[in-house]
Amino acid sequence: MSDVWEECMEHGVAAARKAGQVVREALKHEGCMSVMLKSSPADLVTETDQKVESMIMSSIKEKFPTHSFIGEESVAAGESSILTDNPTWIIDPIDGTTNFVHRFPFVAVSIGFAVKKELEFGVVYSCMEDKMYTARKGKGAFCNGVPLKVSGQEDITKSLIITELGSNRNPDTVKRVLANMDRLLCIPIHGIRAVGTAAVNMCLVATGGADAYYEIGIHCWDMAAAAVIVTEAGGVVMDVTGGPFDLMSRRLITASSRAIGERIAKELQAFPCERDDGKKDD
Amino acid sequence: MSDVWEECMEHGVAAARKAGQVVREALKHEGCMSVMLKSSPADLVTETDQKVESMIMSSIKEKFPTHSFIGEESVAAGESSILTDNPTWIIDPIDGTTNFVHRFPFVAVSIGFAVKKELEFGVVYSCMEDKMYTARKGKGAFCNGVPLKVSGQEDITKSLIITELGSNRNPDTVKRVLANMDRLLCIPIHGIRAVGTAAVNMCLVATGGADAYYEIGIHCWDMAAAAVIVTEAGGVVMDVTGGPFDLMSRRLITASSRAIGERIAKELQAFPCERDDGKKDD
Repeated sequence: MSDVWEECMEHGVAAARKAGQVVREALKHEGCMSVMLKSSPADLVTETDQKVESMIMSSIKEKFPTHSFIGEESVAAGESSILTDNPTWIIDPIDGTTNFVHRFPFVAVSIGFAVKKELEFGVVYSCMEDKMYTARKGKGAFCNGVPLKVSGQEDITKSLIITELGSNRNPDTVKRVLANMDRLLCIPIHGIRAVGTAAVNMCLVATGGADAYYEIGIHCWDMAAAAVIVTEAGGVVMDVTGGPFDLMSRRLITASSRAIGERIAKELQAFPCERDDGKKDD
Repeated sequence: MSDVWEECMEHGVAAARKAGQVVREALKHEGCMSVMLKSSPADLVTETDQKVESMIMSSIKEKFPTHSFIGEESVAAGESSILTDNPTWIIDPIDGTTNFVHRFPFVAVSIGFAVKKELEFGVVYSCMEDKMYTARKGKGAFCNGVPLKVSGQEDITKSLIITELGSNRNPDTVKRVLANMDRLLCIPIHGIRAVGTAAVNMCLVATGGADAYYEIGIHCWDMAAAAVIVTEAGGVVMDVTGGPFDLMSRRLITASSRAIGERIAKELQAFPCERDDGKKDD
């Protein structure tokens, strides 16, 4: 079976590159983008998100007609986001839509692939940087063909951590997000960075450029591809409680070492966040 | 006189590019960097900072022996940071030292130039991206030769804002920094980003990629060069109170419009921060 997934991955890389070209073209056009709101005044979507997702899906469906899909914009339009055992493509056409709207230079196409609910490969194309991150389970992680390795840092006081303020503007949620940052900063750590896309944030951990990234409120399409990349680069993925990583939980810590990940988990206070698969938390 | 400053600027660009090469070379070497602490466990310096600053200064001194200097590492070593009327080069050899230590891909060489206490030109070289930002008073701002223009956004609720958590780990200061972010997020705004270098943050506003950047606690060498760049790109610089920009105050709002800058000023609560020139605040 493994050859089948290899062919899928090659197709995924080609689709991501083509999608990235469309995103770059869209960024060149001057003037106002047509921006719509989703769950909050800070949760944005554009026509390009929808166009790019449907382009990626059509090209995959044509080649692999029996496969399933979970795509950010399809789910927004009412499709299900339940992961089954069927080979499933998990797609974010533009990870970092707010960046895209502002032309802030981090925008990624993210394509993950799971079989029997296990992630098999991931492709993240950071299109303004022209960086193609790829990883296949058991075969290592790469950026533009160069192998990636996490920093291996185990000392939290020497760590650089990435997180995001998120798009939720509920005052209580904002306060909890900031309180988590407060506790980490005062450990102390070296610093916190936020570039505005979960997929790129995770890839930055894979390169060793940061020692961890955590966030509550992201979705399976933000994490699926990059979870393979960071794991194959030697990093860990886990839940914000320090328990096992759950793709549908909307919660993630990824780190250069289990020690750093667990140390972050110790400081984080989670807040409620409806799961992607609609299941209720225990 | 203007030809003299043109020659200075050309020399500044050449010095920044050469310094950037040294920084990039240093990043290639595997293994531990020798990292020292300055004002806090998160205020770092390396041998490369010191080496690059002395390299830039020597090359300028040789050509312009009567000029004055304010350099981050020279000041750390006890030199004065008083701005006089003499032509003065204001230098940060590595803006984003924490990024440099972690190989987080934003590290800039910043060279500003003032005469009679007025900024005449600025050069910011973001060396890992290979982006050379330049501006001369009255002559526009450029990135790799391409003219820059701020977004012109005036509506805070549609803005993307950059700021930093900073290197101060005093719990009260951290709380004030986070409280400022809280107030801005809840206006609401589109989001907050932090890439870890003041100079690049300011240049991102100049490109239109973000609508504003503010910070308390940065230094004159972080702001001098990029203040010219963002102003020449059509942006504004002001104090965090909304009053006039003061290079020595360690406080800055830069924005795509006066409306956005003043709206941010309305939300910010300043905290004490010793001036670069040692003067006491009124």
